[in-house]
Amino acid sequence: MPDLAATIATIAADMASVTDRGKVADYIPELAGVPLGKFGIAVCTADGAEHIAGDADEPFSIQSVSKLFTLKLALDIQGDALWTRVGREPSGSAFNSIVQLEAERGIPRNPFINAGALIVADVIAEAHDDDRGAIGAILRFLRELAGTRGNPDETIQIDPRVAYSEAATGFRNAALANYMKSFGNLRRPVDEVLQTYFHQCAIAMSCRQLARATRFLSAGGEADGTAIVTPERARRIAALMLTCGHYDASGDFAFRVGLPAKSGVGGGIVAVVPGRASVAVWSPGLGAQGNSVLATLALERLAGAMGWSVFTPEGG
Amino acid sequence: MPDLAATIATIAADMASVTDRGKVADYIPELAGVPLGKFGIAVCTADGAEHIAGDADEPFSIQSVSKLFTLKLALDIQGDALWTRVGREPSGSAFNSIVQLEAERGIPRNPFINAGALIVADVIAEAHDDDRGAIGAILRFLRELAGTRGNPDETIQIDPRVAYSEAATGFRNAALANYMKSFGNLRRPVDEVLQTYFHQCAIAMSCRQLARATRFLSAGGEADGTAIVTPERARRIAALMLTCGHYDASGDFAFRVGLPAKSGVGGGIVAVVPGRASVAVWSPGLGAQGNSVLATLALERLAGAMGWSVFTPEGG
Amino acid sequence: MPDLAATIATIAADMASVTDRGKVADYIPELAGVPLGKFGIAVCTADGAEHIAGDADEPFSIQSVSKLFTLKLALDIQGDALWTRVGREPSGSAFNSIVQLEAERGIPRNPFINAGALIVADVIAEAHDDDRGAIGAILRFLRELAGTRGNPDETIQIDPRVAYSEAATGFRNAALANYMKSFGNLRRPVDEVLQTYFHQCAIAMSCRQLARATRFLSAGGEADGTAIVTPERARRIAALMLTCGHYDASGDFAFRVGLPAKSGVGGGIVAVVPGRASVAVWSPGLGAQGNSVLATLALERLAGAMGWSVFTPEGG
Amino acid sequence: MPDLAATIATIAADMASVTDRGKVADYIPELAGVPLGKFGIAVCTADGAEHIAGDADEPFSIQSVSKLFTLKLALDIQGDALWTRVGREPSGSAFNSIVQLEAERGIPRNPFINAGALIVADVIAEAHDDDRGAIGAILRFLRELAGTRGNPDETIQIDPRVAYSEAATGFRNAALANYMKSFGNLRRPVDEVLQTYFHQCAIAMSCRQLARATRFLSAGGEADGTAIVTPERARRIAALMLTCGHYDASGDFAFRVGLPAKSGVGGGIVAVVPGRASVAVWSPGLGAQGNSVLATLALERLAGAMGWSVFTPEGG
Repeated sequence: MPDLAATIATIAADMASVTDRGKVADYIPELAGVPLGKFGIAVCTADGAEHIAGDADEPFSIQSVSKLFTLKLALDIQGDALWTRVGREPSGSAFNSIVQLEAERGIPRNPFINAGALIVADVIAEAHDDDRGAIGAILRFLRELAGTRGNPDETIQIDPRVAYSEAATGFRNAALANYMKSFGNLRRPVDEVLQTYFHQCAIAMSCRQLARATRFLSAGGEADGTAIVTPERARRIAALMLTCGHYDASGDFAFRVGLPAKSGVGGGIVAVVPGRASVAVWSPGLGAQGNSVLATLALERLAGAMGWSVFTPEGG
Repeated sequence: MPDLAATIATIAADMASVTDRGKVADYIPELAGVPLGKFGIAVCTADGAEHIAGDADEPFSIQSVSKLFTLKLALDIQGDALWTRVGREPSGSAFNSIVQLEAERGIPRNPFINAGALIVADVIAEAHDDDRGAIGAILRFLRELAGTRGNPDETIQIDPRVAYSEAATGFRNAALANYMKSFGNLRRPVDEVLQTYFHQCAIAMSCRQLARATRFLSAGGEADGTAIVTPERARRIAALMLTCGHYDASGDFAFRVGLPAKSGVGGGIVAVVPGRASVAVWSPGLGAQGNSVLATLALERLAGAMGWSVFTPEGG
Repeated sequence: MPDLAATIATIAADMASVTDRGKVADYIPELAGVPLGKFGIAVCTADGAEHIAGDADEPFSIQSVSKLFTLKLALDIQGDALWTRVGREPSGSAFNSIVQLEAERGIPRNPFINAGALIVADVIAEAHDDDRGAIGAILRFLRELAGTRGNPDETIQIDPRVAYSEAATGFRNAALANYMKSFGNLRRPVDEVLQTYFHQCAIAMSCRQLARATRFLSAGGEADGTAIVTPERARRIAALMLTCGHYDASGDFAFRVGLPAKSGVGGGIVAVVPGRASVAVWSPGLGAQGNSVLATLALERLAGAMGWSVFTPEGG
Repeated sequence: MPDLAATIATIAADMASVTDRGKVADYIPELAGVPLGKFGIAVCTADGAEHIAGDADEPFSIQSVSKLFTLKLALDIQGDALWTRVGREPSGSAFNSIVQLEAERGIPRNPFINAGALIVADVIAEAHDDDRGAIGAILRFLRELAGTRGNPDETIQIDPRVAYSEAATGFRNAALANYMKSFGNLRRPVDEVLQTYFHQCAIAMSCRQLARATRFLSAGGEADGTAIVTPERARRIAALMLTCGHYDASGDFAFRVGLPAKSGVGGGIVAVVPGRASVAVWSPGLGAQGNSVLATLALERLAGAMGWSVFTPEGG
């Protein structure tokens, strides 16, 4: 097997010369202003090692990568009953499509499209009394995951300007939330759910922090010897990542990279190599489906070089 | 690890007492007449062993399971150029939906929905001059895969009554083919493509034969020491199976079973455990999405008992 | 020609014995509580006569009938530029469908579906500074139309309980408004537009008042000798009523009745017989598409008896 | 009222200088080769007069204008039972859309979209044994309508090259027919229905012949003193023309012109002025929705100049 540290360094170096980097998200100024040249990667391996390259310690807006962690929290609260309110199927349409909701009467196809993540946020807001409680719980969970036992990483923060901008432009998400409310699939007031969602998207983390936070999904549900979820739940969340983690480019990502992963419009992608490693990559330029061009490419290279794919005899 | 032979035997025994078996496909008499009580399972492991239970040697109509093998043939012919004519994304709709084709101008979402399989059939018919040539090539390939080196399994046949009935009732598929033809995404005459497709669906095979034929996908592309496809192609086909193999229940299957698999309306499902085994299960009763109820349940039990999941540290 | 007064009396009497009256709208208590047995009809003829029968002087919630009058106000403000923000085609779907908005990027198909009426409300709210100003302008206009020259009918009021209930349950409309806002097709804040819309729907009027208010559309744009709109605009609004006035039952209404008309979920329908009469009918029981069953039937009888159809040589 | 003959002459002269004439249909060579400069108009008035201008005696492919006449024949055969197999609502989508058929399970929205016209053709083919019989019946009916009593206009012919080309390229229509067959809404073999449809579209007629053939719809169902349909049926067909006659531009045509009309992709439009006149206009250049640009404009001018609109007090 090739040397991981060297492989990561090579990939990071290669990425610097890629010219087709996509376009930075421009719907809010805080994202539009991120330099297109940024690239970072961090890998946490099963033996506890960490390897990083590039801008791996620079915080960025995790956006939809947060949906992975809120899903875990909502499953803690509702268990499998959650699946009566949100499906587990790929959507076959854009991340913010409202069409599917009409045909399927307010039940989103999966927890990783926006509508599904709003249901998840509703569950957390209900369990924690309101949006303030929900946001606190989400932030606390991420700090613990990214920290060491008993030592939460308090440097992880919500960027209040991002949260504000999301709310000021989030009419599409408001439409989705109101629409699901009209079908009775939202319990808390629409504004609470939206505030929870906008704040979880505004959490800023570095690749290193995200790779740490995702360790439990690559290790049968454990991190630092503590069970975060059961092995079965870890496996199932990974299955959802593989089939639904990249919106309407999930099939393509599975085809090219072959790893469970979740992307965000801030340019971050976290990926899981069961039994081996968790990976976080960041580069702000996005492709047509809203996934980071360079982060995808880097993961394809990494998976190829290391033989990491859930679909190969030696790699899973 | 538990004993595989014993596990299979237990599962087969358990299945006998399941009362909720779904409904046998009834759109043609040849399928409608299959007894709901049938159940068979066969597993080929990496070390060359075979384990079977139940009606594992009884031939049944493989139907859409054939799409797995025709995809391999079409990729041999067209290579990656095939992906300009058919996508790689889950469909988010029923296996025979025509709606998506209108929005995406005659390009089916993936090769496992009917529209995509018709494109694949068109590629094979073009390469082999007509439907007769195409059908011969498909049958030859399956006989070789299910046989041993130099010893094709000539017992594998097309059931002519099934092929005839498919053609006599196949108006939906004729609609799909004509529709794609109107967008220029079909090269051969519609009738040739349909005949190819109806005949590939009418191939009759047993679980044992299907498990043998699928070995190469669990073994990095090799069977009996011969490379059938490259490791990369084997991995990519497995990725497509996982994201698209069960129509609009693919996400749910990945969630519950966690293995790349392909189902058919005849009640068969083949699954792949990378590096470990290929599996074929058959029971004719179908659920709402057209997948075998008992074959799915048996695979869920088998995967659970053996720790076989591409999403677990120890199982992939 | 048969006697109009006698015809109306006969129809009203006949309606009393109809047992299949549909179902009263039940999404808000104020509508759910209206007795199913109510029926009223009022006709204003070109010669200034008025004929009524049944509960013709009982106010009811005009709901979507209001869209007719707000359209007139918005056309006064924006002129033909309005048609860049809302279309003039039948929708081919339910009155509150959101699907069409996604495909057509936030441009509603016509001003009589909810989304289109929200655009119209936005235009009025912008011209009158806010929802309060808009609501005042709409109410003033209806009082003038239903009154005599210089003598507005001040008995026309908004039912505040209806407006409140609409707002408390109006998540679907909030979804539509937010969705169009996300495409930039709404200028005022979403809440202002919704408040304007909910209040216009909560206006209570009797059949007599509605028939009076609609006179100008049957008389080349004039009422009491005053031009309300140009003849061309009157003709065009009538065309929109015919093609779009009954949501996805507009074709059927044109087929059966043959008159331009606009229905509301409160059970009211106003219809226009060019050059002859304006008609308002009310009965709260609705059919599957949300149009009053008895009001439709009464209009079919009236049009049949009087030879009133825009599609007959003698009747237009 | 202005002089009709002079008005028509002026309009024809004006049309000669219009430069934005749209594009000639190019899906078959027979249509693609028609000179864009052609323009003809013919009007038959209630008093038996005929007025023509331009290329009013030049035969052109009537295409979908034929749907008007086949609808009459199918209603003769099936009566109102026809409406269980085809709807009466505007489609809200393109003339050849297949999406609606999936949602509404093989029941086309109206008889003027292609799918609906195929149902109509199926009814006629069933009543006349096969496509040959159906085509003969359609041709006979048009010759009688365009002729005088006892003197059918035998110059009306089917252009066999057009019929052949339609069949050779008609994959979209074949898709629609097969799709409806899969829902059981087609009784005759698909090929018979398609042949009937392709041949009715290939009938060649001049404006003068078409205006004559449409007289009965403007005269309460009568032509030359003979009842062709009942007054009620004439009125109802006119209602369908107004709401559905121009595919997804029907609302716009009603708004601008205000007359029941039916267009064809050959560039012809027939319109009905109840009690006054039937009109046929032809110019081969089409707009985005497949309706003749100049024929629409000429009808708008004619209706405006003569005060002909079903929505005006004086005009209907």
